[in-house]
Amino acid sequence: MKEYDLIIIGSGPAGYVAALRAGQLGLKTAVVEKAKIGGMCLNWGCIPSKTLIESAKLFDRTLKASTFGIDGIDPKAVTFNWKKAVDRKNRIVTRLVKGVEFLLKRNGVETISGEALLVGRNNVAVGADEYSAKNVIIATGSRPEIGKCGPIDQSKVVEIDQLFDMSEIPEKFAIYGSGGTACETAVMLRLLGKKVTIVSPQQSLLWFLDSSLSKFISDKFSKSGIKVYAQREITKDGEGGVFSDEDFIECDKLINCADRKAVLPERSGVDIELVDGFFKVDEFMRTSAPSVYAIGDVTGQMTAHAGSAQGACAVNHIAGAKTSFDPLKIPINIYLDPEIAAVGLTEEQIKAKGIEFKKGEFPLSVNSKAITEGATEGFVKVLAESKYGEVLGVHIVAPNATDMIAEAVAIMQLEGTLEDVGAVVHAHPTVSETVLEASFKALDKPLHI
Amino acid sequence: MKEYDLIIIGSGPAGYVAALRAGQLGLKTAVVEKAKIGGMCLNWGCIPSKTLIESAKLFDRTLKASTFGIDGIDPKAVTFNWKKAVDRKNRIVTRLVKGVEFLLKRNGVETISGEALLVGRNNVAVGADEYSAKNVIIATGSRPEIGKCGPIDQSKVVEIDQLFDMSEIPEKFAIYGSGGTACETAVMLRLLGKKVTIVSPQQSLLWFLDSSLSKFISDKFSKSGIKVYAQREITKDGEGGVFSDEDFIECDKLINCADRKAVLPERSGVDIELVDGFFKVDEFMRTSAPSVYAIGDVTGQMTAHAGSAQGACAVNHIAGAKTSFDPLKIPINIYLDPEIAAVGLTEEQIKAKGIEFKKGEFPLSVNSKAITEGATEGFVKVLAESKYGEVLGVHIVAPNATDMIAEAVAIMQLEGTLEDVGAVVHAHPTVSETVLEASFKALDKPLHI
Repeated sequence: MKEYDLIIIGSGPAGYVAALRAGQLGLKTAVVEKAKIGGMCLNWGCIPSKTLIESAKLFDRTLKASTFGIDGIDPKAVTFNWKKAVDRKNRIVTRLVKGVEFLLKRNGVETISGEALLVGRNNVAVGADEYSAKNVIIATGSRPEIGKCGPIDQSKVVEIDQLFDMSEIPEKFAIYGSGGTACETAVMLRLLGKKVTIVSPQQSLLWFLDSSLSKFISDKFSKSGIKVYAQREITKDGEGGVFSDEDFIECDKLINCADRKAVLPERSGVDIELVDGFFKVDEFMRTSAPSVYAIGDVTGQMTAHAGSAQGACAVNHIAGAKTSFDPLKIPINIYLDPEIAAVGLTEEQIKAKGIEFKKGEFPLSVNSKAITEGATEGFVKVLAESKYGEVLGVHIVAPNATDMIAEAVAIMQLEGTLEDVGAVVHAHPTVSETVLEASFKALDKPLHI
Repeated sequence: MKEYDLIIIGSGPAGYVAALRAGQLGLKTAVVEKAKIGGMCLNWGCIPSKTLIESAKLFDRTLKASTFGIDGIDPKAVTFNWKKAVDRKNRIVTRLVKGVEFLLKRNGVETISGEALLVGRNNVAVGADEYSAKNVIIATGSRPEIGKCGPIDQSKVVEIDQLFDMSEIPEKFAIYGSGGTACETAVMLRLLGKKVTIVSPQQSLLWFLDSSLSKFISDKFSKSGIKVYAQREITKDGEGGVFSDEDFIECDKLINCADRKAVLPERSGVDIELVDGFFKVDEFMRTSAPSVYAIGDVTGQMTAHAGSAQGACAVNHIAGAKTSFDPLKIPINIYLDPEIAAVGLTEEQIKAKGIEFKKGEFPLSVNSKAITEGATEGFVKVLAESKYGEVLGVHIVAPNATDMIAEAVAIMQLEGTLEDVGAVVHAHPTVSETVLEASFKALDKPLHI
């Protein structure tokens, strides 16, 4: 039986980053992958969606180019070639997958193709082969729950990974879901001029975010013609559509963006504790089974970068270094138009904890860079505890929120206060000045409002 | 004679921010402006240029839209309507100027129109009127040196503020200068398909930046068809152009982007020490004349946000609070394609100081978000001292560098180390991950390369 220091099950952004780190640290490491290196994120999730959203945003922008002084584009003649955009996406995914394969090799990580069965605490079987390892990391990810879309003809249902591989797409979509994928998919399709209806099982879209953000999204979707049925299920099939209670929703396809469930690997001879269907882990990503770690979606942390950070944390622990993983300093990025990003506590969470706090909100509509970009929808909200002013949460709606959040995470990681943010000279003209202004406002002295 | 706590001469981003802060702190404040509220930056500098660059970038992007799956745009039919773009710029400037006027009023700041004469240390004359103030802040800005473009027909020369107000522009430009304005103007005109030649009095464009950035720009300009004559002057006039030594440069207009010189206000009965033509100031922005402060370009700090920060610092000092201004933590943003941003020490400065240092460079070409955007030119370079790993400088070339730099400034302001940056979870997929990777690389453990 071949022996390793570490076997990692799953090669998504949690698993492959753990593998790279393990390779760097000199551990004899193998990664088992049943589908494609890079996992959901790289092959069917984050990267494909961001690539197509980029295309959709440019499509929308070309239609408005005249405002910026660009003549000679007839909006009626401009069309979106889905196939061409998907081909571009495929080229990008292939390039990135090859990149990860190369990195794994260069870091001395072996790749085993197939589905893993965890046998006891130290063995992994793949097909007829069995391998042993001092430690095992489970990084098997998640996927939207199947069959949640209601009692309808299943040929109408499209999984998100299937959508990104269709060679052409129809005109009318229903989307079942309330989270980031549901919203991103809705915005992308709407930018392409499709008819989009969301059936949201939750009361609010993006219900886990600060309510100011979910309210913004609700208003924005309404303005941009995305119909949302909140706190609803799909209850009945229909001709050319589906029903939610009495309401008929016209659609050619129904996209399943139901809440994601952990994809648990098969186990034999080992008990691992679960909480709500996810592996329970401690601060070093150890499961209840000694020598078995879990990282990524399978632990309930549903972002790629949280998985990567957990991967580094787990491998560091295996190698004898204790670095911790703080879920409160993990940014959440949602690629809408404008984008949404957040880190730390929401106002609702702060209130529920009974923390005295200050807040500052600053709109993009008076930010000069946002005005030059013709993209003034959005705001920055900064929350801090009252005594020292330590920043507890930052919530951003802005065209470039997903990059802007990096500053907020850095400030929170370094335990910065509102006064600290006020001392950070923000370049002019930039949209990042709104972070400064929101902090000034929390200190009761905004400049530009 | 009307009496004030504070008179500020000049209403650019240094002066008007100082005025707003003074108003907030309850100082009886007046601001004297000889031209337009908002000064050079708002009326003829940063904002007009960023607005037109935004248009130029979109123009270029529409020409490449097909790559992203957008059909129906004929690049040959797409034209740039300069007049329309300038009209948009004018609307934006008008809106922003009104905004500043409104803010000044709301903060109780009076506005005095006309050219100021500083009389002694506490009086300011404007035309026939004279005003007194406990303190005076000089914020009169700078402008490119006139007459530096050589012995040529002056009707060929266009100042940068004139360019932004022309209702149409010709096809061929020469640009005299080596700094940010010269480069931004060259890139904007080149994106619009114009023929552009730069005559740079300095050996390198952007010579004040880390040499990796100026080298990138030099290569990029060469690839994009911007001809640069380095360490040259314009020596002779010519038919349909100008000469630099033996080289004939075909051009319809020559844009003056010579180094900026301080615009000093008229003074009478007061001596204020100058260094190289700029006011000498201490850490609280005090000049050599008691009760007279100077802020902004007139002190040699040539960015709007440095001026604003100096303005806050000066007013805080006047109001009795000591906050300091650290020129090493002032970002420099240059809006090219891709953008350039930097903060802190360059590698050359670190070497010259004999500091032991680590460095990490990470290219955008392997960053997944940059790949989805189809914008992979650029890199991030992080420099830190060796002992504790404190970050000393960050230098970025990226499509969105001017927003990304905010994180770097925050880290430096909070005296963060490479390990601290490594602990900041950067959202995936974002271009900001390159900051993390460059820091990992400086620590000798990059992940994605």
